Amino acid sequence: MKLSFIATKIGAELKGEDLEVSSLTSLDQATEEDLSFVESRQYLPQARASKARALIVPPELAQELEDGRSLLIAPQVRVAWAKAAALFWKEPPRPSGISPLAVIEEGVQLEPGVTVYPFVYIGRQARIGKNSVLYPGVFVGEGAQIGQNCRLYPYVVLYPGVRLGDHVTLHAGAVVGADGFGYAQEIGPQGLKHLKIPHFGTVEIGPEVEIGANSCVDRGTFGATKIGPGTKIDNLAQIGHNVEIGEAAIIVAQCGLGGHARLGPWVMMGGQVGVAPGAEIGARAQIAAKSGVTGKIPPEAEVAGIPAIPIRIWRKAVVAFAKLPDMVKDWQKLKKLWGGKSEL
Amino acid sequence: MKLSFIATKIGAELKGEDLEVSSLTSLDQATEEDLSFVESRQYLPQARASKARALIVPPELAQELEDGRSLLIAPQVRVAWAKAAALFWKEPPRPSGISPLAVIEEGVQLEPGVTVYPFVYIGRQARIGKNSVLYPGVFVGEGAQIGQNCRLYPYVVLYPGVRLGDHVTLHAGAVVGADGFGYAQEIGPQGLKHLKIPHFGTVEIGPEVEIGANSCVDRGTFGATKIGPGTKIDNLAQIGHNVEIGEAAIIVAQCGLGGHARLGPWVMMGGQVGVAPGAEIGARAQIAAKSGVTGKIPPEAEVAGIPAIPIRIWRKAVVAFAKLPDMVKDWQKLKKLWGGKSEL
Amino acid sequence: MKLSFIATKIGAELKGEDLEVSSLTSLDQATEEDLSFVESRQYLPQARASKARALIVPPELAQELEDGRSLLIAPQVRVAWAKAAALFWKEPPRPSGISPLAVIEEGVQLEPGVTVYPFVYIGRQARIGKNSVLYPGVFVGEGAQIGQNCRLYPYVVLYPGVRLGDHVTLHAGAVVGADGFGYAQEIGPQGLKHLKIPHFGTVEIGPEVEIGANSCVDRGTFGATKIGPGTKIDNLAQIGHNVEIGEAAIIVAQCGLGGHARLGPWVMMGGQVGVAPGAEIGARAQIAAKSGVTGKIPPEAEVAGIPAIPIRIWRKAVVAFAKLPDMVKDWQKLKKLWGGKSEL
Repeated sequence: MKLSFIATKIGAELKGEDLEVSSLTSLDQATEEDLSFVESRQYLPQARASKARALIVPPELAQELEDGRSLLIAPQVRVAWAKAAALFWKEPPRPSGISPLAVIEEGVQLEPGVTVYPFVYIGRQARIGKNSVLYPGVFVGEGAQIGQNCRLYPYVVLYPGVRLGDHVTLHAGAVVGADGFGYAQEIGPQGLKHLKIPHFGTVEIGPEVEIGANSCVDRGTFGATKIGPGTKIDNLAQIGHNVEIGEAAIIVAQCGLGGHARLGPWVMMGGQVGVAPGAEIGARAQIAAKSGVTGKIPPEAEVAGIPAIPIRIWRKAVVAFAKLPDMVKDWQKLKKLWGGKSEL
Repeated sequence: MKLSFIATKIGAELKGEDLEVSSLTSLDQATEEDLSFVESRQYLPQARASKARALIVPPELAQELEDGRSLLIAPQVRVAWAKAAALFWKEPPRPSGISPLAVIEEGVQLEPGVTVYPFVYIGRQARIGKNSVLYPGVFVGEGAQIGQNCRLYPYVVLYPGVRLGDHVTLHAGAVVGADGFGYAQEIGPQGLKHLKIPHFGTVEIGPEVEIGANSCVDRGTFGATKIGPGTKIDNLAQIGHNVEIGEAAIIVAQCGLGGHARLGPWVMMGGQVGVAPGAEIGARAQIAAKSGVTGKIPPEAEVAGIPAIPIRIWRKAVVAFAKLPDMVKDWQKLKKLWGGKSEL
Repeated sequence: MKLSFIATKIGAELKGEDLEVSSLTSLDQATEEDLSFVESRQYLPQARASKARALIVPPELAQELEDGRSLLIAPQVRVAWAKAAALFWKEPPRPSGISPLAVIEEGVQLEPGVTVYPFVYIGRQARIGKNSVLYPGVFVGEGAQIGQNCRLYPYVVLYPGVRLGDHVTLHAGAVVGADGFGYAQEIGPQGLKHLKIPHFGTVEIGPEVEIGANSCVDRGTFGATKIGPGTKIDNLAQIGHNVEIGEAAIIVAQCGLGGHARLGPWVMMGGQVGVAPGAEIGARAQIAAKSGVTGKIPPEAEVAGIPAIPIRIWRKAVVAFAKLPDMVKDWQKLKKLWGGKSEL
């Protein structure tokens, strides 16, 4: 692939010879035929040592990297290399059409270009959009709807009636639409009993959403659990019933969102965060990994801790926390010293 | 469905006309044909704005809601509406009988009314009770036993020999009976080696248990991991080997219970709690989300934090935690001020 | 099985009669035909009460247990009983050969002794080593390689191209090789957009690795995510893209390792630990359950907390934490008392 072609596609400026490159990879793995990239100044030594034939670089590093190699100068380097990588990406080849070893119940609509691998089960009245791929063992419940160009990896489970937009990717083992965790506590003569609350609702997943392996999105009690367009969810995350997530949120692995939690658009959440049932997180808020969110987090806020507090306070508080043993010692001495003279 | 019929079934008193309602839903989603419910005073404005034809309400709100609509007055509203919802719930229709695309090994006992979907695998000598449903791809290991009226959703895996009571529900991807995480650390010439400890034990799941999607319950090393009757476990939870959980516990998503942990009856546990191996939690204790439990928690206790402490102390301590940066500053000033005069 | 035979196999010294035992189990479950074991002094009362015909014991307890029973004296008792247990362990019988209900694409290499259960899917050019077992519903992506004597339990998913060493065990629902969670944030006119970064890399899993049910190991962006020989990973763990784990690490359930994290050999990690992207943990370091690791943890260190600090400080700090409410009260009094006389 010619550098000039790549430059056009990724919106970069080519400086140097218009060479051919055969793939894109990291600085340390690049051979003399590869294109690589320099995200920031800290990678300069690696960049100089790299065998890469050409580099994608930000404008501010272009001069320092002029060593005869061709450069693709791009202001958003990470975006530029992601786009370049997409040019080199080849989806693994796949059989087209419907495997005779799949089970497709009555009334299913399959649009053209759909691939259905063996051992897929599609319940009645389900609808699969154009060019979507159902890998082995995908389960599509009755009446579920899948948009166009979706990828459902092995053993994805869609409970009945859930709806996916276009270009949705669900990784292996993801479960969409299981019952929410809702019970009514009946106080009876033999103690507490948990009556199951039936879940009449569904799940609506917007276009361009990606959900990681073995993650779970529960159906609403009434109404839908909603995941906004472009939201990306990592592996092993739990999205409770009637949660609503706005556009383009980022939810890292093992986060858990309690029922009815609401996330505005562009919320970013580190790994293993817990969000209490009904909590609200404003647009663009950032939640540090392992935090526990309760109540309301305002838009743009950055929070951390259990319960989550503003991250600038949290950062100081955890430093102080490590000094607590010393403080306690002093505090006890102080109490003794001033014991006779004060209320301490 | 007539309101008088519902009133009888849910133990409510009908006030107003004996109308027909066509379904039960939330206040905001209800149409003029629906029944809805008012759980507490905070929903009064929504109740007044709702189009619902009739409402389930607690006695103390009945008078305030007298606006011509029919009311079903019930002391435990949540229990009442859960029961009413169950009246309207229709299990999705399913084929009856055994799919020819399932594999059933020798010596399997299937009681009448069992549904086995395609791609199910049932190992030798397994036993499936009356009216139980095995959705596509359920794996039942050799000698495993499933009670009556169980629902095993797609890709539930039962390792050999595990036992489920009646009316057990396992959501998609739940794994019951994998080996516990047990190794013996052998100190050898090349360093530490982890020798696998074989797991001879099993898992016993009581009646009326529900386990969420992608949750895991490990088999015992010797003897059984036990989950008491009526216990409800959410998605992505981990139950270690030889854990024993009492009756009607509630375990929210992503909790992890270490090997040999013991939970009394009616324990309630928020999401993402960790319980150390061998820890003991007394009856009716409540563990706040994200806590880390070690040692023994007495019955009825309410705890929070890592490690878990009484929640009323924890609540104050986390408020104080956010003030730590200021306290440290004062503490340092104080040490300086009194440095010459005291041991501080 | 004769005690003398067991003694030879586990490196123990037989004291007493060379009896036959029929199985190995725990002290409380043992019958008069069984062998059991005493790991430490705290189990002496149970040992005395046990019906076990013979006991594996450490040298320091041998004398106290001389009550006529035969003893197998072994310095590393836990290692000894694990080895003895392995002698009694019988892998469940399985059909040999390839199920006609499995789908095996072109160019797949199956070495002798491989078992392929029904509903397995093996993609093109994949390679399965001698005596490996693929339980029902295992998915092997194109070009993936599986070593000898591996056990892949139901619904294990190997994405294309991943590689497993010999004697690898993957429990049900484990997913190896899904895309890492990598996006480039493109700032566009309609707000932030997350561009997917294609994942060209793979996963390399060393020999003797065991991975628990529903755990996930993501593929590298470029290059491989690597799991060292003999490492054991529990259920529901998340291993991010390009993570490198050394030899014989222990990772308990629900841990999450961010992208590019590095763990030296023999690292041990309690449950629900989070490791930040790019963090480094030195050889033999021990991370307490629920900790949050950032930056660098030196070899041999023992840490705890969020963020993780040396465990001996953390232990004191959490004690102090519970006293914070009192400290704050005193601190406020102090500020009032000395308010006129100092800067406090």
